[in-house]
Amino acid sequence: MEDALLGKLDDMVREKGYPNRSEAIRDLVRRNIVDDEWSDTTGEIIGVLVIVFDHHRRELSSRLLKKEHHWEGNILSTLHLHLDHDNCLEVKVIRGKAGMVKDFADEMISMKGIKYGRLVRATAGGAL
Amino acid sequence: MEDALLGKLDDMVREKGYPNRSEAIRDLVRRNIVDDEWSDTTGEIIGVLVIVFDHHRRELSSRLLKKEHHWEGNILSTLHLHLDHDNCLEVKVIRGKAGMVKDFADEMISMKGIKYGRLVRATAGGAL
Amino acid sequence: MEDALLGKLDDMVREKGYPNRSEAIRDLVRRNIVDDEWSDTTGEIIGVLVIVFDHHRRELSSRLLKKEHHWEGNILSTLHLHLDHDNCLEVKVIRGKAGMVKDFADEMISMKGIKYGRLVRATAGGAL
Amino acid sequence: MEDALLGKLDDMVREKGYPNRSEAIRDLVRRNIVDDEWSDTTGEIIGVLVIVFDHHRRELSSRLLKKEHHWEGNILSTLHLHLDHDNCLEVKVIRGKAGMVKDFADEMISMKGIKYGRLVRATAGGAL
Repeated sequence: MEDALLGKLDDMVREKGYPNRSEAIRDLVRRNIVDDEWSDTTGEIIGVLVIVFDHHRRELSSRLLKKEHHWEGNILSTLHLHLDHDNCLEVKVIRGKAGMVKDFADEMISMKGIKYGRLVRATAGGAL
Repeated sequence: MEDALLGKLDDMVREKGYPNRSEAIRDLVRRNIVDDEWSDTTGEIIGVLVIVFDHHRRELSSRLLKKEHHWEGNILSTLHLHLDHDNCLEVKVIRGKAGMVKDFADEMISMKGIKYGRLVRATAGGAL
Repeated sequence: MEDALLGKLDDMVREKGYPNRSEAIRDLVRRNIVDDEWSDTTGEIIGVLVIVFDHHRRELSSRLLKKEHHWEGNILSTLHLHLDHDNCLEVKVIRGKAGMVKDFADEMISMKGIKYGRLVRATAGGAL
Repeated sequence: MEDALLGKLDDMVREKGYPNRSEAIRDLVRRNIVDDEWSDTTGEIIGVLVIVFDHHRRELSSRLLKKEHHWEGNILSTLHLHLDHDNCLEVKVIRGKAGMVKDFADEMISMKGIKYGRLVRATAGGAL
């Protein structure tokens, strides 16, 4: 590896606190595997959807639930936290084909009343 | 300890799979501590509320959320699972005064649309 | 229904805050259905296991995880809360045959290091 | 707004399924607010940490718990799913100063035995 690149790697090891270069490289390779799983829209993946919403929005939570129960994919579990008097945070762990999961997340995030949303790539872990 | 009582204790050790009598006795004592915490309605405890409901019931989940956000006690976290096309299971970890937690649980469980509910005693753990 | 029994029912309606007698009776019947599901040890049920433990106990959480991954039943989801510097609360939603679920819960609760545990009856909801 | 930019916005509305341009623009603005909250390392934010690990790694889960209980920030709740015989997925909802949350996530993700990890920006919602 060239010196410049090696320097960047060492920066990453130091900043993120990896015990050594090998552990950092292993992580990079595994991230790449997950990204590949997600770029194949027909392969099965696991995604984590984070949304923030105001529960006062009329029937929003009922509409969310309806959408979830009618979805073909699999919502393994939802964690719900009351942030304050108005705001809720929900984290949904979702299993399905990558394309379907992305579409579902877009649909949820773009709903009226959802203030904020992010879909995070995860993996069923088999390939790691 | 009398023989008859000792026999019962050994039954418990065998049936529940405790490694020995001491571990079983320790568990009984700790359960008693938790029960005491709960019988003092003004002491702070942790409860776990389990409910099953049909999400098709009109606005039920929105009504649940509203009640939760207006409650004085503290709902630390809710876990939500989709059981099938119709039914949801929710587990709520609640912190508050024992009397308040019981009242809140009763209020939730008796709501129209809630099919099943149980409140379980837990503890913040300090006294164990 | 005799007057004495009716009186008890009305007490329940008032104390728990049911909107009317019918809702209270419906709840009693549904609780009975869940209890029946559980008394048939070969039928599939859902249980909620609550445990409190001290995370300082040597490798306890690793031993718990091992036991869980090797169990034949299905642990749908675990919710973990840090209660204080020492104590953790875990809530596990479990699906399996009633007999298996009870045995698994007994095994967990009786482990050295688990301070407190309770298994709660729930249901997949189909029969309610 | 220039035509080219308007075209991009309409692409976004169509692809993500927003009901209209306003809703899409609102979302962009809110995302920006969250990003700003995170760029101020001393402000309080909420983060969601997703990790995948092999529970067979010696004492890994015990080491994770220890690190969590000793951390100064606040881990509000952890959701744990058994993905398969070997792999676990954990989602942790974390509250703390942005800089602290990032450091904590880096520390967790870089641990030996953690196969995959991502930190997602969320928010306590007040500013949205």
